[in-house]
Amino acid sequence: MAEFDPSTHPHRRYNPLLDEYILVSPHRTKRPWLGQVEPPQTTTLPVYDDKCYLCPGNTRSNGEQNPKFEDTYIFDNDFAALLPLPLPEAPKSPHPLLTTQPVHGACDVLVFHPQHNLTLAQLSVQEIEKIVQAWDEIYNRRGRQEGIRYVQIFENKGSMMGCSNPHPHGQTWSTSAVPTIPSKELAALRQYSLTNKPSVDAPRGPDAGRACMLCEYAHVEVKMAEEGRVVMKNQHWVALVPWWATWPFELLVLPYTRHIPSIADLTDAEITSFADILSSATIVYDNLFSCSFAYSMGIHQRPVPDAQDDVAHLHLHFAPPLLRSASVRKFLVGFELMAEAQRDLTPEQGAARLRACSRIHYLSQ
Amino acid sequence: MAEFDPSTHPHRRYNPLLDEYILVSPHRTKRPWLGQVEPPQTTTLPVYDDKCYLCPGNTRSNGEQNPKFEDTYIFDNDFAALLPLPLPEAPKSPHPLLTTQPVHGACDVLVFHPQHNLTLAQLSVQEIEKIVQAWDEIYNRRGRQEGIRYVQIFENKGSMMGCSNPHPHGQTWSTSAVPTIPSKELAALRQYSLTNKPSVDAPRGPDAGRACMLCEYAHVEVKMAEEGRVVMKNQHWVALVPWWATWPFELLVLPYTRHIPSIADLTDAEITSFADILSSATIVYDNLFSCSFAYSMGIHQRPVPDAQDDVAHLHLHFAPPLLRSASVRKFLVGFELMAEAQRDLTPEQGAARLRACSRIHYLSQ
Ligand SMILES: O=P(O)(O)O[C@H]1O[C@H](CO)[C@@H](O)[C@H](O)[C@H]1O
Ligand SMILES: O=P(O)(O)O[C@H]1O[C@H](CO)[C@@H](O)[C@H](O)[C@H]1O
Repeated sequence: MAEFDPSTHPHRRYNPLLDEYILVSPHRTKRPWLGQVEPPQTTTLPVYDDKCYLCPGNTRSNGEQNPKFEDTYIFDNDFAALLPLPLPEAPKSPHPLLTTQPVHGACDVLVFHPQHNLTLAQLSVQEIEKIVQAWDEIYNRRGRQEGIRYVQIFENKGSMMGCSNPHPHGQTWSTSAVPTIPSKELAALRQYSLTNKPSVDAPRGPDAGRACMLCEYAHVEVKMAEEGRVVMKNQHWVALVPWWATWPFELLVLPYTRHIPSIADLTDAEITSFADILSSATIVYDNLFSCSFAYSMGIHQRPVPDAQDDVAHLHLHFAPPLLRSASVRKFLVGFELMAEAQRDLTPEQGAARLRACSRIHYLSQ
Repeated sequence: MAEFDPSTHPHRRYNPLLDEYILVSPHRTKRPWLGQVEPPQTTTLPVYDDKCYLCPGNTRSNGEQNPKFEDTYIFDNDFAALLPLPLPEAPKSPHPLLTTQPVHGACDVLVFHPQHNLTLAQLSVQEIEKIVQAWDEIYNRRGRQEGIRYVQIFENKGSMMGCSNPHPHGQTWSTSAVPTIPSKELAALRQYSLTNKPSVDAPRGPDAGRACMLCEYAHVEVKMAEEGRVVMKNQHWVALVPWWATWPFELLVLPYTRHIPSIADLTDAEITSFADILSSATIVYDNLFSCSFAYSMGIHQRPVPDAQDDVAHLHLHFAPPLLRSASVRKFLVGFELMAEAQRDLTPEQGAARLRACSRIHYLSQ
């Protein structure tokens, strides 16, 4: 029989962050695609749009006027999914299978840049630094508000990913409960650190296992670069298609030189190199299919700045839907929704495709 | 302070099947929608399409010719995500964080009907009975093949849900591993039955708790019909928007009169009433926005016919993406992918909207 070849033979990979499996069926990329084709993500936009509620100086739906901001701008989401206290308490549950949990919180919108027609991929590293600083500001402010237990920073980019305004912006939803996914990740990180705690007396060589799963994982990937999941790295950060990636060109961006629980723990140099890798990653994304690459992106970290626990290791997930071209996406539907995530090319193939892309944005070449 | 009103105040609900929470933010339906609008799902199709690889008598990509079938037709997926044994074994994992699990299996396509331009909602109960019988046939056949541990029956309907051919059809992927989601559900059902095992001596009134979570849940919902999550029921089956629904108009369809582990355990009468409720549910879906309603649908049950364990209770999930109209969907993106499922109307509101729909298909009215 032929030898095992991950790019030919279906197999399952284990995701230790979420404690679940994913089905890899790379031979399937060969099937013809007769399904839905997405509209092009490359319309030309004006620098300023007088109907955009995110442009400087414009009036929002609640009557407030945006200032003439020059870099980033933060405001309370006018259609917040979470509301602040006080909120009435839900009545006692009529049955143990029908339970409600109270939740309160706040939703912020973070405008990345005054110009309507730009995206992260088109901003300078200095401009992205301002965004990282704004994330840090919101994390510190919201994360210290009474009762807040998690600050979820994210961005939906592209109409394909439910974004309803192309003006470059992200959101943060801060909640009184640690949401489902970060809470699973934190549990897995905690479990790993308990199982892998190095004994105090053991000699610690550079290759001794790390008690933080993500420090260990980043270290292993950077060391085995020839395995081919690392897309890029700089002085402090690595961007890689994780072993257990669900989305075709999913990226995990994380610091690999030391354990960093949160964005509040970054040095100035680490903030700059964070901005640098975000710039390169989004440029490579746009260059892959010469389009404005859609994605959802989110940061996971220590739930709030003053949380006791330091099992969290700061990282950022990019979940981009495109698979074959600027207009053909991967649908995570029937089998994926009902049974298990499934991917059509290996993470190593995804990483190789991304590595082959230029680091200069196709629109400025 | 005002009293708690689930359709005004954000709250979290617990999903006992997956052991996770979902954020309910019903006040959010008020926000204006400026984002992506889906293409209409109402093109007129011919009864027979000579380029369709699912129409009777046509030749498929592998050169095989479909028979001139008269009701359902089953064949091996020409682009299967799973392959049969023998398959080469993966080499030893280079690191505990990089683990592979072997998997084998088979993928079937089940054509629901010879006519190209119909959907479940337009088939008669007798025609749907044939589909249920075909599911039973595949479940028994694949579920008894060497090494197969789960038979996942599902349908992707509509191009919005990644379906690449409108000819009415579903799929089954049979795998040597119980996939992630059914395996979580089975664990939750097992745990529930251990905790809720009635003692042998205890008097059993009609309201005594059931050891099967889903039997108990169906019983509670049918009894509390005024709470408003039940959309319809017949002699054996109930279709309801579950307390913990993620999708705006999600439905859970399950038998409520007795514990039924799998499709192989259905009586003829229960097969007929299953077909009946599937017919009504898909008609109501189409009538909601007068369109061919897109969804992914999947059946969960005892993993394979001869599995020892009988904690499973047969049920079917409908996951439909539309939210506001035939062309505006709910995007489960940034917060949902990175943090927690979030919905914009309560399950009770979703159920009320569906209950108000006619049971006669809008195209035949
Ligand atoms: O098998 P199909 O219909 O070609 O493909 C569709 O269903 C599969 C199973 O849910 C998904 O993996 C694909 O992304 C989707 O496009
Ligand atoms: O808040 P927005 O951008 O209006 O809305 C978008 O992001 C939200 C958070 O991921 C989602 O709940 C919405 O479905 C999506 O359309």
